[in-house]
Amino acid sequence: MDRVLIKNLGQFEGQDVIIKGWLYNKRSSGKLHFLQIRDGSAEVQAVVFKGDVSDEMFEAADKITQESSVEILGTVKKHDRSKLGYELSVKEVKVIGESVDYPITPKEHGVDFLMKNRHLWLRSPRQRAIMVIRNRIIKSVRDFFNNKDFMLVDAPIFTPAACEGTTNLFETDYFDQKAYLSQSGQLYMEAAAMAYGNVYCFGPTFRAEKSKTRRHLTEFWMVEPEMAFCNIEQDMDMAEEFVEYIVQQVVDHCKDELETLERDVSKLENVKRPFPRISYDEAIEILHKKGNDTPWGEDFGGDEETLISQEFDRPVMIHRYPMECKAFYMKQDEQNPKVAKCVDMIAPEGYGEIIGGGQREDNLDILLAKIKEHGLPEEAFDWYLDLRKYGSVEHAGFGLGIERTVAWVCGLHHVRETIPFARLMDRIRP
Amino acid sequence: MDRVLIKNLGQFEGQDVIIKGWLYNKRSSGKLHFLQIRDGSAEVQAVVFKGDVSDEMFEAADKITQESSVEILGTVKKHDRSKLGYELSVKEVKVIGESVDYPITPKEHGVDFLMKNRHLWLRSPRQRAIMVIRNRIIKSVRDFFNNKDFMLVDAPIFTPAACEGTTNLFETDYFDQKAYLSQSGQLYMEAAAMAYGNVYCFGPTFRAEKSKTRRHLTEFWMVEPEMAFCNIEQDMDMAEEFVEYIVQQVVDHCKDELETLERDVSKLENVKRPFPRISYDEAIEILHKKGNDTPWGEDFGGDEETLISQEFDRPVMIHRYPMECKAFYMKQDEQNPKVAKCVDMIAPEGYGEIIGGGQREDNLDILLAKIKEHGLPEEAFDWYLDLRKYGSVEHAGFGLGIERTVAWVCGLHHVRETIPFARLMDRIRP
Repeated sequence: MDRVLIKNLGQFEGQDVIIKGWLYNKRSSGKLHFLQIRDGSAEVQAVVFKGDVSDEMFEAADKITQESSVEILGTVKKHDRSKLGYELSVKEVKVIGESVDYPITPKEHGVDFLMKNRHLWLRSPRQRAIMVIRNRIIKSVRDFFNNKDFMLVDAPIFTPAACEGTTNLFETDYFDQKAYLSQSGQLYMEAAAMAYGNVYCFGPTFRAEKSKTRRHLTEFWMVEPEMAFCNIEQDMDMAEEFVEYIVQQVVDHCKDELETLERDVSKLENVKRPFPRISYDEAIEILHKKGNDTPWGEDFGGDEETLISQEFDRPVMIHRYPMECKAFYMKQDEQNPKVAKCVDMIAPEGYGEIIGGGQREDNLDILLAKIKEHGLPEEAFDWYLDLRKYGSVEHAGFGLGIERTVAWVCGLHHVRETIPFARLMDRIRP
Repeated sequence: MDRVLIKNLGQFEGQDVIIKGWLYNKRSSGKLHFLQIRDGSAEVQAVVFKGDVSDEMFEAADKITQESSVEILGTVKKHDRSKLGYELSVKEVKVIGESVDYPITPKEHGVDFLMKNRHLWLRSPRQRAIMVIRNRIIKSVRDFFNNKDFMLVDAPIFTPAACEGTTNLFETDYFDQKAYLSQSGQLYMEAAAMAYGNVYCFGPTFRAEKSKTRRHLTEFWMVEPEMAFCNIEQDMDMAEEFVEYIVQQVVDHCKDELETLERDVSKLENVKRPFPRISYDEAIEILHKKGNDTPWGEDFGGDEETLISQEFDRPVMIHRYPMECKAFYMKQDEQNPKVAKCVDMIAPEGYGEIIGGGQREDNLDILLAKIKEHGLPEEAFDWYLDLRKYGSVEHAGFGLGIERTVAWVCGLHHVRETIPFARLMDRIRP
């Protein structure tokens, strides 16, 4: 008899089937043992009734330990009170791999202990819920761009020169030279946009920042679309459509998981276009009204982002920051040369910046001047400058950080739970 | 008037539209200029007739250089002989960004020159065809596993210890320790399979091999599924279904691109299940018959793979290699302890190994012995060994290299053209 996945048990009502999985919980009551079994596809309760099995097997079933792997032969029965809608009446149960002293028990554990046991912690219902939502967010990202015929163009990880200094870069010996791990695929996407119009990359990026905050990972995934013939307004249109899409996909497909995480779904259902768009100047006004005295010209930190986000019930887009806050490639606003045609999207509920982007400088002379102003080596950007020499066009894009998005959508305090194997300043194991 | 994408021109037959794009070719004949325009979505011919525009504009149109960006107002007309089925009768043409002395001309260029100008080379029809097929292959990989409810579990890039020595690993300072760039996510996927049943990871992997062959990149993308309750036979079933799917998706969706590459499509159409499955012993027999005297116990190289693949008209799976050829985690065959329950899939037409995989050792004691035998530090694998302590189950998986698959499907001699920005021993720019 072939094994049936637990999620498919409903197709076999009244029939005998074999399932294979792990015991994650158990309780007994007189002549009954209730074995809670998961196999990755779903969970089911397997009921061992003393009258249905040999005394030996009934006793053995009582001794199955947490996380032992088991094979169970049983009859599928309707069971309306359970999530699955079905349970299993056990005829035979057999342990495949025993589990002795499984370290993660239903009692409370410290975060450090759980992170050390991440390879096992992933099995718990809460972590599973986060990973299911992460999986859905990533699928939605790809579907969104595939549906719009964006071409995936993978950016390289090894890069020769630092875009903006080497301070926060991981360095490696690369045969007879040095290479740095990429912080962003953007410059490469600009080249690709000149070839294919609408493109995106989606891969891991790296930041060697010495910070232990709840928002920082050394290794995180980022998706970066880039569009030719696109200005800052169209860029914001795309960003809000994109974020609405991925959040609503989670709302539609991950009801159970959001419930497991006790997430207030109404806050997510609310994430619908149009999102508010305010200029940096307006953001400064809001801050000043609220008693935060950030002077014009300074970038915002987490505190400022939270103060601004409190004014809105959905993500807010702040555009046109002072030129000095932003990278050299940002497009100067012709209306007001002091500001850049850039945008940050701040998640609601204090989850901080999830998107950074904007229109890129497409004028060769201005770009050359900016490179000098920022003290960057011109020769490192020769190929990038080529894009302004051979058919330069208006273009724009943005980057969305997956882990911060997962933290926001799941309602998690710390990003360390948003990725299967988090890499932090003080953690590269398991 | 909004800009229309070239691929959508057919919806506007008889109407005036604006397109924006780049001029990739041009020819003139008396009173006509034929401008070949691409915008990333498709290509179209824009016809400038002397009688339709001012003399000034007619002359200016003649001077538009290769890869200049242009904005064109014109009327959409049916044109059956073109791929698109439509052409544009030009009313106005205007240069957005001039292109002076574009380096890649229709004449022949050396590969080194083209690789140095990769950021521009990507614009050429041949490179576009490869990138479209790469995009389709990657989409098919994700669709295949999503359709089967595999959970995406991203493996980390930073790893603390070397799975099998540090010789071929890129090393980086990681705050107060060393980290290595991952060669494979497999061990992490095994942990994930114990949590979620069927899982996969898909990301860049790194190999610091000092080899300049046509099959080696230092940075390449790999997809690695892992399945709980799966043996070597089921693993091979999955591998052949998977490869058939991605190849047939390309055949179905990329006809134009395969034609551009002059690929013999019949060879790809033939990639249908079942694929031949031969044991290592049978492979050795084939080699000996063909005059290759590889002794039993040695691994196969490119030459052997090519000789074996010549016997078959589709990919061939070679299973049960000698234990000593393979990594410590391979499951020993109970029927014949000299061989491992592993499998390599060799592409036809001499394109070499595209898949490596197999069943994993799930017995704690045997695995411990193998780690000792291979001289590996047991403490580095403590968490990996945990997977055999807490509910161990039969499990298997495989890894498929994207770039080798793209090379095979596209019929390319060298992998450097299969990835947008190839990283080779002597190349990390642009």
